Amino acid sequence: MNDMDYFFNPRSIAVIGVSKNPGKIGSIIFQNLFESGYKGSFYPVNPNADSVFGRKCYASVKEIENDIDMAVVAIPAGGAAQAVRDCAEKGVKACIVVTAGFSEIGKIEAENDLVAAAGGMRMLGPNVIGVYDAYTGVDTVFNARYRQGRPGKGGIAFISQSGAFGAAVMDWCVNEGIGLSRFASIGNRADVDEADLLEYLSMDESTKVIALYLEGAKNGRRFYEKLKEASSKKPVIVIKSGKSREGGRVAMSHTGSLAGSAQVYSGAFRQAGAIEAVTSEELFDFAKAATLPKMKSGSVQIITNGGGFGVIATDAVVENGLKLAEMSRETVEKIKVCVTEFATVGNPTDLTGNSTAGMYEAAIAGALEDKSVGAVMVVLLLQVSALESSVVDVIARSAASGKPVVVCSTGGEFTDAHKKLLEEGGVPVYPTPERAVRALKALAILSKTI
Amino acid sequence: MNDMDYFFNPRSIAVIGVSKNPGKIGSIIFQNLFESGYKGSFYPVNPNADSVFGRKCYASVKEIENDIDMAVVAIPAGGAAQAVRDCAEKGVKACIVVTAGFSEIGKIEAENDLVAAAGGMRMLGPNVIGVYDAYTGVDTVFNARYRQGRPGKGGIAFISQSGAFGAAVMDWCVNEGIGLSRFASIGNRADVDEADLLEYLSMDESTKVIALYLEGAKNGRRFYEKLKEASSKKPVIVIKSGKSREGGRVAMSHTGSLAGSAQVYSGAFRQAGAIEAVTSEELFDFAKAATLPKMKSGSVQIITNGGGFGVIATDAVVENGLKLAEMSRETVEKIKVCVTEFATVGNPTDLTGNSTAGMYEAAIAGALEDKSVGAVMVVLLLQVSALESSVVDVIARSAASGKPVVVCSTGGEFTDAHKKLLEEGGVPVYPTPERAVRALKALAILSKTI
Repeated sequence: MNDMDYFFNPRSIAVIGVSKNPGKIGSIIFQNLFESGYKGSFYPVNPNADSVFGRKCYASVKEIENDIDMAVVAIPAGGAAQAVRDCAEKGVKACIVVTAGFSEIGKIEAENDLVAAAGGMRMLGPNVIGVYDAYTGVDTVFNARYRQGRPGKGGIAFISQSGAFGAAVMDWCVNEGIGLSRFASIGNRADVDEADLLEYLSMDESTKVIALYLEGAKNGRRFYEKLKEASSKKPVIVIKSGKSREGGRVAMSHTGSLAGSAQVYSGAFRQAGAIEAVTSEELFDFAKAATLPKMKSGSVQIITNGGGFGVIATDAVVENGLKLAEMSRETVEKIKVCVTEFATVGNPTDLTGNSTAGMYEAAIAGALEDKSVGAVMVVLLLQVSALESSVVDVIARSAASGKPVVVCSTGGEFTDAHKKLLEEGGVPVYPTPERAVRALKALAILSKTI
Repeated sequence: MNDMDYFFNPRSIAVIGVSKNPGKIGSIIFQNLFESGYKGSFYPVNPNADSVFGRKCYASVKEIENDIDMAVVAIPAGGAAQAVRDCAEKGVKACIVVTAGFSEIGKIEAENDLVAAAGGMRMLGPNVIGVYDAYTGVDTVFNARYRQGRPGKGGIAFISQSGAFGAAVMDWCVNEGIGLSRFASIGNRADVDEADLLEYLSMDESTKVIALYLEGAKNGRRFYEKLKEASSKKPVIVIKSGKSREGGRVAMSHTGSLAGSAQVYSGAFRQAGAIEAVTSEELFDFAKAATLPKMKSGSVQIITNGGGFGVIATDAVVENGLKLAEMSRETVEKIKVCVTEFATVGNPTDLTGNSTAGMYEAAIAGALEDKSVGAVMVVLLLQVSALESSVVDVIARSAASGKPVVVCSTGGEFTDAHKKLLEEGGVPVYPTPERAVRALKALAILSKTI
């Protein structure tokens, strides 16, 4: 069993700092374990209460009768070291210190005390929102669930040096229908850092792709090695903030990390075989595409039902160094008999506002069977009248073809409902052609076709 | 009265091609006029019906007893020229031909017939979804309302050469809470073109900003002149697609327009004083920012409650050639007494996860009063527990300060509800710091501060 398993898949959890006030951080974490489907045992610790939320409360973690795999420390900074020491003495395997007020505000000695108290016990934090695991139900994220959703099961693991960035992106994922495998915020990294998690997640079966938000590596050499190792096993997408001199200064005061030179990082990412996201949107734009089958060629077939989006998509394919696939005459003829007479079959194939699910089916199937096509980009505008909702199933089925299919869909409420179904069916959906194509470019790089 | 007024503010409308089948294009347009709050008279025309939707139906527009300001032609291409001729003979002032199947599929003669039939009457189309006016209720967009929303009243006018692009973006606007003044899709531009509309909208009081999606200008010289004229009166944001050789070829077959050289267009936009959007998201990202007061300096104050977003925003400010504002010592001290002890007051000001509406109020008010601050960018992460919903009012009130305020907010359902309220309160909201800062850069260019 890897050390990190105790964070994501512990058999028992103690939450230190659960109060009768349900709005307190420790209380939210304790309630999470009821709501998240966590199957193990979990215990509240608070010396000032006999019971909380209908459970017997323990004065110290050491008083719990059973073994504890993982403990969460959610008490003010002053008492954190003692709580960590108690955990170590109890034989707890791993602990998460969510409490802030350590090296990030200059209190380096207090953080060193935590490390000393932990002894050999693995520690995540301090200054973290901790761990969320969609498969095991571990959830130490202390934002109330009505304010921040928890993503469903999926193939993307997400490591964030910033807790707030992690929370906001998880919340966004829920709305979009994007699933996660495991999430960890790493904060001050007094012990566990991004390298530990890269190593662990690279071997994790539920994780198909790793997304990483980084302000600066804790240990440059080890990070590079673990990034390279992980990238050889599965796609890793990294965004590095604090690239400007000014941004680096802010990162220093945020998580106490040395941001370092942007060029050095970009070069290291490339050499390690990871994909760098330049904007925060790209992190998940790329991660979603990276869950797809590899591209056998960099040739993209565009299928649209809006001419303008076809033009924008065509520009984007060319500008991103991808190629426009050229389907064979046979394929074109085969598709032509199945679509409206107003359609243009070519690249783009424009099914026009008269498009139906059947026409999409013919156009996508034809393209996927054609040798010249490395990936299919579907523009799906659901505003038009004749297009049935079953087009969602048509596209989701095509995702099993062994070739990557991405969708661009722009719109409002009706569109969003369909986008979410597509995402939940494993099809990445993007709000604009440009973002869809940039994601395909990232996939092409991972596929070594450009 | 400007010719174009007959399209956006007609006293009476005839819809030619209303059938008993409610799913037909003409029927949807006719129903729109019931649902949109249009105050004028409107009449259905169809030689094969005595009445439709409870209204007397006319065999020809010429049989309508009253004067008709505007007619919509929604019948198959074969009969369109005759319908247009009838309109001209009746003395109709303006007509919209939504019917497709003309020059965009090579039928140039058929399109010339339309122009001849119109005589001097102004004609929008063919091959358009036509006009939507949030103020007068004119709505010839033939997508059912459950599939495509209609934006509320706002200050952005939107001209789209592509109907599908226009429809998708309008639908998206509804979801985001973005209001429009007037919308027109210009399609094949047999008569009315982007230059006519630029001229009209530049003088339109409800329109504060003009957003234009263009594949290619119909008449380069006239377009440039009208663009320059319009840009001298209010901000104009343009996106030009069909920039690549391949994209230009697709644009040719889509709306029959010569795409022309990307550099020539970019140069012309810049010289005319318009702002070019490079991606389709930027069109409205920039248009929203352009509704704000001008920036007196290019110095941005960042106020955040998430450290990571502060780092990303700082990078973005520097990378986009803007400056980080340096608030005076007095301002800093004034803010400090109103915020949590864990906060960093500076640039960024980080209110941390303990942030409240009151802290945002103090930080924003302080920044807006400080001479060094040209614009305020607020990062608002609503996942955290202590932050009250009243922060929306705090920010919306600050928008009346005379300095631009933009918001970045990332998240799910809870966040989206608040974002929409902010947009409806006139505050532009962006999903990432990078997009918020790029929009501020566009505003800085319009303000001639960078």
